[in-house]
Amino acid sequence: MSRTILMLPGDGIGPEIVAEAEKVLHKINDQFNLGLSFESGLVGGAAIDEADTPLPNETLEKATKADAILLGAVGGPQWDSLPMAKRPEKGLLGLRSNLELFANLRPAILYPQLASASSLKPEVVSGLDIMIVRELTGGIYFGQPRGVRELESGERQGYNTYAYTESEIRRIGRVAFEAAQQRGKKLCSVDKANVLEVTVLWREIMNDLRREYPDVELSHMYVDNAAMQLVRAPKQFDVIVTGNMFGDILSDEAAMLTGSIGMLPSASLNSEKQGMYEPCHGSAPDIAGQGIANPLATILSAAMMLRYSLNEEKAAEAIEAAVSKVLDQGLRTADIMSEGAKKVSTREMGEAVLAAL
Amino acid sequence: MSRTILMLPGDGIGPEIVAEAEKVLHKINDQFNLGLSFESGLVGGAAIDEADTPLPNETLEKATKADAILLGAVGGPQWDSLPMAKRPEKGLLGLRSNLELFANLRPAILYPQLASASSLKPEVVSGLDIMIVRELTGGIYFGQPRGVRELESGERQGYNTYAYTESEIRRIGRVAFEAAQQRGKKLCSVDKANVLEVTVLWREIMNDLRREYPDVELSHMYVDNAAMQLVRAPKQFDVIVTGNMFGDILSDEAAMLTGSIGMLPSASLNSEKQGMYEPCHGSAPDIAGQGIANPLATILSAAMMLRYSLNEEKAAEAIEAAVSKVLDQGLRTADIMSEGAKKVSTREMGEAVLAAL
Ligand SMILES: CC(C)[C@H](C(=O)O)[C@@H](O)C(=O)O
Ligand SMILES: CC(C)[C@H](C(=O)O)[C@@H](O)C(=O)O
Repeated sequence: MSRTILMLPGDGIGPEIVAEAEKVLHKINDQFNLGLSFESGLVGGAAIDEADTPLPNETLEKATKADAILLGAVGGPQWDSLPMAKRPEKGLLGLRSNLELFANLRPAILYPQLASASSLKPEVVSGLDIMIVRELTGGIYFGQPRGVRELESGERQGYNTYAYTESEIRRIGRVAFEAAQQRGKKLCSVDKANVLEVTVLWREIMNDLRREYPDVELSHMYVDNAAMQLVRAPKQFDVIVTGNMFGDILSDEAAMLTGSIGMLPSASLNSEKQGMYEPCHGSAPDIAGQGIANPLATILSAAMMLRYSLNEEKAAEAIEAAVSKVLDQGLRTADIMSEGAKKVSTREMGEAVLAAL
Repeated sequence: MSRTILMLPGDGIGPEIVAEAEKVLHKINDQFNLGLSFESGLVGGAAIDEADTPLPNETLEKATKADAILLGAVGGPQWDSLPMAKRPEKGLLGLRSNLELFANLRPAILYPQLASASSLKPEVVSGLDIMIVRELTGGIYFGQPRGVRELESGERQGYNTYAYTESEIRRIGRVAFEAAQQRGKKLCSVDKANVLEVTVLWREIMNDLRREYPDVELSHMYVDNAAMQLVRAPKQFDVIVTGNMFGDILSDEAAMLTGSIGMLPSASLNSEKQGMYEPCHGSAPDIAGQGIANPLATILSAAMMLRYSLNEEKAAEAIEAAVSKVLDQGLRTADIMSEGAKKVSTREMGEAVLAAL
């Protein structure tokens, strides 16, 4: 059995951090005899520069065939003035949608070793462990019609469509209920059902699903309140499920509660458990090429990949244990640096994880 | 010259907190000889129970004629299962839209006396003073078409439309640039221009306006990043301008950074500076009728009303000074209570402000 991993470094710090994660995957492949083979491809700005499109056909074909994808990050100021269809982000969105990676899992975990990095008071965030389940291939990101039109008055109007079908809601709901079953058995569905019809349907379907998961306690919260509650008392949450746009906002807010977004991985899965794995942070063009980016979120994304797409729980745990060990050793990249710790480069951090494996 | 204020207590704690603000307004009216006269009306759940509609014609007529409106809050669980068009929220949304109250100003200020109430570290929030300018009569809240339709497949799809015209963007942009001119001269426009066409137009118009306000420094931020930056380093912001939905989320998040949402007022203005003023918090049905709600956000909303709609800056400052004085005296309602302070009821807090005037 050979399984293929597609590496998509992308832009900015992407190549640097993916390089470290790739070394870790090679070593774990040998240690655990996983039979993984590796390919690589272009996406985002890197693909625009090389092939004049953010998602070349070749990349899409490789992605479709791969068992899992490890992505760095896409985007940067040099491509910001391109028309929407040609921007780096379209590479990412195109992969999500072509592979139907509808289930985006974003853990927000506070590493005890990094507790002081949070801008919140220790008692508010210590032990924080939330899982955000974000719908990733529907909602306003992909809704039609969309664009800019000229009205009869002669002025322009920009418009987008926020839409969900019952089955789209049901399949992400199931993923979230199942995640809650594996964890603290509490699921909070976030919507704006007091204003938006599309989220009235969302709430109805979530309530329907409740019968299939009687061991999970379901609650509902309006998105404005959720944004507040994450700041006030984030530990009240176990699993949160929400649509694409609200999930984009709330998962970044939740990630930042930890103060160390350079540590947080994510998974985007389809119904065959094929998945794309990427750090929660972006391409950080301001520090690209300096060798100072934190590779741990990408390395932890590789661990998630082993767990969710390759069914190699032990190998995943080995990586996670190695990351925990280097944190215990006091090694820190600049983004998570604190007094008394030892500042290391991207590469030194990667090497330390390899050594700890 | 007689000017009319319409009091709309609404639901939950609304009547209790509006009663205290009304006493304050009566006293300030006498002290400063403002020539205000007062009316009252039904809105939200209270109007549904009495008149079977969340916004009776009589209320709308009074509102249209009033110089300013002071609203408590709307909504509660007993009306949550009503169809969308009959819900308390429609009373609020109907007032906003009929009166064209497109400019929602939401300050997020940390009162030094209440610094410890924040869930953020003191150094992150001390001195916090942000103004969020939210577009209030357009965007996805009011976009057409909307609803739930049956697809050919037989399944249902919920949908809403997120739309803005150039002129809608321009008029809220002007309000925000002007607010920035009065303050720290920094304006951050929040959008999702890497994904949503409607916000590409938003960004273009904001950039256009820059020429009219050369003294204001304009920046742009994606909404997911803004949700993060508010947690990480909120003091980087001066004025934030954004659309209706993003503004709903970010203004609540920003309010909660202070830890004392019971202190925060808001103003919703039209182009004639007619305005509706209300606390940022909701109707809090869980504590309604107990006499323990914090009336200060409503009292401070009355101060905003004097400033923005009635052009009575001195009277506004007098109220704000009185509020500051009662805080200095150590008086606290339950929501902002801390060790060593004196816990007071809604009414006692109102009386203390009166005494301090
Ligand atoms: C880059 C952008 C299109 C993307 C999104 O909005 O989904 C990013 O913010 C994310 O959350 O993965
Ligand atoms: C009650 C609700 C409709 C309203 C909104 O979403 O605008 C509220 O959350 C607010 O922010 O004033």
